[in-house]
Amino acid sequence: MTASRTVELEGHIIDSGMMQRAFGAVMDLGGSFHVEQFDVGTRKDETSYCRMRVTADDDEHLLPILHTLHQLGANLHDPVDATLEPAPADQVVPRGFYSTTNHPTRIRHDGAWLDVEYIEMDCAIVVEPSSTGNQNASRSDDVVEPDGPRAYTKVLNAIEAGDLVVTGEAGIKVNPPERPRGTEGPFGFMQGGISSERPSLSLIGNVADAIVETAESGGNVLVVPGPALLHSGAGPDLARLVREGYVDMLSAGNGFAVHDLERDLYGTSLGMDVETLEHPRKGHKHHIYAISEVIRAGGIRPAVEQGVINSGVMYECVTNDVPFVLAGSIRDDGPLPDTIQNSVDAQNAIRDQAREADLVLMLSTLLHSVAVGNCLPSTAKVVCVDINPATVTQLVDRGSAQAVGMVTDVGTFVPLLAERVLEG
Amino acid sequence: MTASRTVELEGHIIDSGMMQRAFGAVMDLGGSFHVEQFDVGTRKDETSYCRMRVTADDDEHLLPILHTLHQLGANLHDPVDATLEPAPADQVVPRGFYSTTNHPTRIRHDGAWLDVEYIEMDCAIVVEPSSTGNQNASRSDDVVEPDGPRAYTKVLNAIEAGDLVVTGEAGIKVNPPERPRGTEGPFGFMQGGISSERPSLSLIGNVADAIVETAESGGNVLVVPGPALLHSGAGPDLARLVREGYVDMLSAGNGFAVHDLERDLYGTSLGMDVETLEHPRKGHKHHIYAISEVIRAGGIRPAVEQGVINSGVMYECVTNDVPFVLAGSIRDDGPLPDTIQNSVDAQNAIRDQAREADLVLMLSTLLHSVAVGNCLPSTAKVVCVDINPATVTQLVDRGSAQAVGMVTDVGTFVPLLAERVLEG
Amino acid sequence: MTASRTVELEGHIIDSGMMQRAFGAVMDLGGSFHVEQFDVGTRKDETSYCRMRVTADDDEHLLPILHTLHQLGANLHDPVDATLEPAPADQVVPRGFYSTTNHPTRIRHDGAWLDVEYIEMDCAIVVEPSSTGNQNASRSDDVVEPDGPRAYTKVLNAIEAGDLVVTGEAGIKVNPPERPRGTEGPFGFMQGGISSERPSLSLIGNVADAIVETAESGGNVLVVPGPALLHSGAGPDLARLVREGYVDMLSAGNGFAVHDLERDLYGTSLGMDVETLEHPRKGHKHHIYAISEVIRAGGIRPAVEQGVINSGVMYECVTNDVPFVLAGSIRDDGPLPDTIQNSVDAQNAIRDQAREADLVLMLSTLLHSVAVGNCLPSTAKVVCVDINPATVTQLVDRGSAQAVGMVTDVGTFVPLLAERVLEG
Amino acid sequence: MTASRTVELEGHIIDSGMMQRAFGAVMDLGGSFHVEQFDVGTRKDETSYCRMRVTADDDEHLLPILHTLHQLGANLHDPVDATLEPAPADQVVPRGFYSTTNHPTRIRHDGAWLDVEYIEMDCAIVVEPSSTGNQNASRSDDVVEPDGPRAYTKVLNAIEAGDLVVTGEAGIKVNPPERPRGTEGPFGFMQGGISSERPSLSLIGNVADAIVETAESGGNVLVVPGPALLHSGAGPDLARLVREGYVDMLSAGNGFAVHDLERDLYGTSLGMDVETLEHPRKGHKHHIYAISEVIRAGGIRPAVEQGVINSGVMYECVTNDVPFVLAGSIRDDGPLPDTIQNSVDAQNAIRDQAREADLVLMLSTLLHSVAVGNCLPSTAKVVCVDINPATVTQLVDRGSAQAVGMVTDVGTFVPLLAERVLEG
Repeated sequence: MTASRTVELEGHIIDSGMMQRAFGAVMDLGGSFHVEQFDVGTRKDETSYCRMRVTADDDEHLLPILHTLHQLGANLHDPVDATLEPAPADQVVPRGFYSTTNHPTRIRHDGAWLDVEYIEMDCAIVVEPSSTGNQNASRSDDVVEPDGPRAYTKVLNAIEAGDLVVTGEAGIKVNPPERPRGTEGPFGFMQGGISSERPSLSLIGNVADAIVETAESGGNVLVVPGPALLHSGAGPDLARLVREGYVDMLSAGNGFAVHDLERDLYGTSLGMDVETLEHPRKGHKHHIYAISEVIRAGGIRPAVEQGVINSGVMYECVTNDVPFVLAGSIRDDGPLPDTIQNSVDAQNAIRDQAREADLVLMLSTLLHSVAVGNCLPSTAKVVCVDINPATVTQLVDRGSAQAVGMVTDVGTFVPLLAERVLEG
Repeated sequence: MTASRTVELEGHIIDSGMMQRAFGAVMDLGGSFHVEQFDVGTRKDETSYCRMRVTADDDEHLLPILHTLHQLGANLHDPVDATLEPAPADQVVPRGFYSTTNHPTRIRHDGAWLDVEYIEMDCAIVVEPSSTGNQNASRSDDVVEPDGPRAYTKVLNAIEAGDLVVTGEAGIKVNPPERPRGTEGPFGFMQGGISSERPSLSLIGNVADAIVETAESGGNVLVVPGPALLHSGAGPDLARLVREGYVDMLSAGNGFAVHDLERDLYGTSLGMDVETLEHPRKGHKHHIYAISEVIRAGGIRPAVEQGVINSGVMYECVTNDVPFVLAGSIRDDGPLPDTIQNSVDAQNAIRDQAREADLVLMLSTLLHSVAVGNCLPSTAKVVCVDINPATVTQLVDRGSAQAVGMVTDVGTFVPLLAERVLEG
Repeated sequence: MTASRTVELEGHIIDSGMMQRAFGAVMDLGGSFHVEQFDVGTRKDETSYCRMRVTADDDEHLLPILHTLHQLGANLHDPVDATLEPAPADQVVPRGFYSTTNHPTRIRHDGAWLDVEYIEMDCAIVVEPSSTGNQNASRSDDVVEPDGPRAYTKVLNAIEAGDLVVTGEAGIKVNPPERPRGTEGPFGFMQGGISSERPSLSLIGNVADAIVETAESGGNVLVVPGPALLHSGAGPDLARLVREGYVDMLSAGNGFAVHDLERDLYGTSLGMDVETLEHPRKGHKHHIYAISEVIRAGGIRPAVEQGVINSGVMYECVTNDVPFVLAGSIRDDGPLPDTIQNSVDAQNAIRDQAREADLVLMLSTLLHSVAVGNCLPSTAKVVCVDINPATVTQLVDRGSAQAVGMVTDVGTFVPLLAERVLEG
Repeated sequence: MTASRTVELEGHIIDSGMMQRAFGAVMDLGGSFHVEQFDVGTRKDETSYCRMRVTADDDEHLLPILHTLHQLGANLHDPVDATLEPAPADQVVPRGFYSTTNHPTRIRHDGAWLDVEYIEMDCAIVVEPSSTGNQNASRSDDVVEPDGPRAYTKVLNAIEAGDLVVTGEAGIKVNPPERPRGTEGPFGFMQGGISSERPSLSLIGNVADAIVETAESGGNVLVVPGPALLHSGAGPDLARLVREGYVDMLSAGNGFAVHDLERDLYGTSLGMDVETLEHPRKGHKHHIYAISEVIRAGGIRPAVEQGVINSGVMYECVTNDVPFVLAGSIRDDGPLPDTIQNSVDAQNAIRDQAREADLVLMLSTLLHSVAVGNCLPSTAKVVCVDINPATVTQLVDRGSAQAVGMVTDVGTFVPLLAERVLEG
């Protein structure tokens, strides 16, 4: 006995590649399809519609096909409610739970479609049917929504016994972002892809325009810098961007902060004088000592307030009330008192920032960029800069439809960017 | 008024490069030297001796020169005691603290030379003068040495107020490993450097010999694998090496363990069937579900004992009582109950393993390899394998005198290595 | 006044991505489209058909759109003859000449469709209307086709004054290869893409199967090796594959041949003993001397016949009558008498081999792989192996629909491949 | 019976690493040494002297040791004449010929030391005893030296039957450049190594200073650019540097020139509009057509003179009489009439430029940089810029003592460099 279901696709499903990927997925997974209706948009501003019946040998083979089609934006035709099952224990999902994409998603509950809040990839969806607010929502303690049911994502470690978790594929609509039309406007360059064939200066100009546009429209710019930014001498330029109000949040590691503080304290980074290029001494002694001095002061903010730290990226964050998250890693020295040592706590802090971000600049750090990227919806704009093409590819491929990768030297990129943002 | 001090170098100081680096350091840092005595070994098995007076403009300029010379193995001529100062607060070092190298080190205390225990780079040295044991020693609770003073390293976060910390440069002798003589024996190939010009199969044979030799001599082999090892299909071969007793400890991340467990549960890694190369479905659903099932079981060992997990690297570790450390990161899903979420706790667990390791195999993971490498003395043997030359260079340059780098595919390296180790 | 033309697409135009790229191209280039007919294949083995009218501001804007659509496989609807213009001079093409893709192509001439012979990218198409044979065809002196008109490619430097060259876009049909259905058979793995997520050993097995299958079906295997293959110790394994008849042609550079000969003469490659890993002496003296000795003998074949050379890849090529092309470069020492010093002559020799190749193995050489790839039709199967992902990406992206890239160590790949091919 | 010889080393032999390498070489190659005299410089501006006796099992083992010691700068103590043997045939060297380093070298002939002219690595040294001029000197037709014997390098393919070629190791002195003292002056930063830890902007400033200093002192700047420079949008900035007189010679490939000319003709490079980032059309049509148009004009200079080409790097070279060498490769389209198709002819043209160069900028091309680097003496200053660290490492390691590598984006490097050079 074969099993089959009908799915629908709608939108710019041809030129966005959605149709191609859907047909390919069915074939890859051993199924077959019968297109029942196909209305093609005859002009570039018209959408298309496809309804097709997908068949596999049995339900076991059909399910993964439907799962994949969902993630591609093909939704089950039949308007049924999403299935809910209670989580059997804390941090345990029911069998067959629905694992999210990072695309805008709705689920059908009691006959109505609910937007899934805080969409993020690889999460479960929890439905809160009551009208009593959302005590269970993992990271949204400031939200009060007294009426109506809600649906929101939860990462595995936030699942609590009894949470009503969406399972199966029915009653869920995923809406992947479409390919942008046209190439105009400050975000016109954001058509994905990696820049190896694009002129560096022009692309830097485009990124500068996007930052200015985001700032002017009241959006939030999140910067995710790695220590290489400081080693390459671009620290003062990032500090200027913070001081002038173009950075709304910063997400980094312990190492970035320590190198930045060390430079203020000793004019060195990793023991090298960044102005004269001279190595005054080998080793990490200054690195350790900078941490020790900040611990003595009680943290970065007290160190700034006590006049221990007088310049740099972290100084400007403190002085200009730009919130920062410093996540710990097993590679760290110290760490600083400000560094979040627990990885789950650090992820939650990163998640809170990611949810507020409209434009994210990932600058020469793979670990922190991946961690931030994991929490971003596909609607966030992302610019990823690294001198290693593999890093850029890995980040751009992770899922934002408007991610732009640029293989360049952060040590020349940031100064040129700051010049363009600040001097027009 | 100029400042000057006399330093000595001893050993194979010419062909090890020690003389060259010492002369270079003095000149780089603006000092001058006067060689007072130079007895050159006239044959290759004779050591040399050099005593020279180093002069700089003032003490402020002389100190960094002496610090650097120390790290290169040039020791102050004058036999004085090391200076000790109490730590002013928890996690705060006194000004001018001595920051360690990863080379065997001795300090002079009460006229006698003490070996510094648990040598590791970028630490402080704490001296415990009393005969009352070592309650303060950070990671050595099993050691009882009732008599005499001791000196041992402490990382910054283990420093407690009042700890007697070595400061300055006097009374300290560093002994960098010398260049190995000859190229014979199973470790003969370990003369550092990176393998890009060496025949891959021959070098794999050398690594296999080193593993067998370490096992036969009762030494400890520590394996540090990354998830790429599993994606490339080499998981079963690493599992065989564990099963057959050639792996004594394993240090990895949450991601490695989850991919390994997922493969056992579903025959997939990151959603791909590793035998047939087919992607049965996209996304991380299996990944999340594998974590959830192990959480339900109560951890990896219970999951093995309950028959949930029946094969793989982690299964063999549990079954053969090979201790493993899983360190958390902000990139993790889950994490597993076995994963150490706190980065300082994870470092300490890594440190305990590193202190026991005689041969370390770093296989396709930068983060965990750096974390392990940070804790290793320069006397440990290290083999680092990665397909990215930048990763290999970074790891080999960090300091082990007997580190060997190999730029190759871990997916062919591990199967060929297992064949050579197990079949001779 | 706007300009518009009607184009058709036919085949598996949705799941091959052809429709998506066509719609995207029109929009990218500022045009608009009106879909006049769209018959979608309702099952996976049915083809689709699309006819659409493309409009732009004027002819100047329309032409590049039509050019791009052509290259994507969209052909002008109107059945007119291709336009021909005589070349104004040797090595000079008429304005508006049609530049080829590497896909199978037909042109309409005197109302009939002619297959374009020797299809290769970035060439002009020359039509020979007469029935007098093809004295002008650049590289096909052995072909005698007395009847009917012919069309074939010519690279720019082969164009002669008066050649009838196709211009414009009308009367040309391009047929890009479709996405393979299913994943079975020895070539089932050849669905393009790069292997970083695939198990190395399984993929090597697939390549071995493809070589055996090609040999058994009487096809030609062309190997394109770089010197890194020899440095990594894989020379003897490639020599075995030549000796056992699995290599039909070899295309390499002067450097590859010299390193191979040097190894036979002195047991070294670049001055290193490849068995013992010892550097017997620095420098290129052996390298130069190997060339000198082969020059003294009169070339590689005479050197083999005179007993100067007794093993290695080049020895096996000579002994087993496997034709080889050695192309010169400005990086060469010597060169050998067999090396073609003139770059245009070398390209022509490479082209002759490429036209006969059914399966091409590109092994760790960017320069020679690009040169061979430039001459291949998109119907040739290509396997590209390199440890540098950027090299693999660049080669796989160049155009073969059945190119497979594998990021691995050629020093382990070739031995494992030879074992699988020769021992099954 | 053992064999032994006495060698001498002189200069800053310790801090330059010469002693270390010499001792290491003897041990690596299975010999032993007895230091007979060692006078160490007691201050940093005093040189040292070492005389040691080197012993091996027999002459066969001693010879490679002496060969290696020679290349390191250790010279045979005994003041004998260099041995000369006639070349047995054209392009054939006598057995045991001496293969050069790229360091300044002298040979002893008739009791006097002759400087070896045109020193270059991997060549033979030919002695011309007569006073009849140098008809045989391969590339020095403009030199007339009627009196006294001469010694000069010849590459293998320039050797003629009967040339008196130096063999063995006696009577030859090699003088490797010493480590620069101090870090001041425009070339103070040129202490080798690669810049990954140095601030990008500071290093660009240093390179700019070196260019200005070279120009002001009447030296020659040779630029070796690759096509990536143009794709990244830096073409106009390099053109400015040519126009303003800071580039004295240019060495590139056919591809560089075609992309540059194409940009002038069509505002595109590889089919992309470099100002607006738009791809007006796919494919290489413009590329081929640009070549065709230049062929029609008769070459680059005629194309400039006829007004076909009006801007760009090649335009500025022609207009400002900056000589350029375009070397052909098997990857080329066309090629242009200016491109030297024969690889040996191209090497000779490159060699003529290399001999005149005081400062060489290698910008994003491995092939041409290696070809130029092969011809440079170790006294030439080299700056190598590439975004790929492996390329930079390979070039810097090839032998110039004053080579500086910088891993950065040529698309930001060249504009910032031009700004610094031209605006101070």
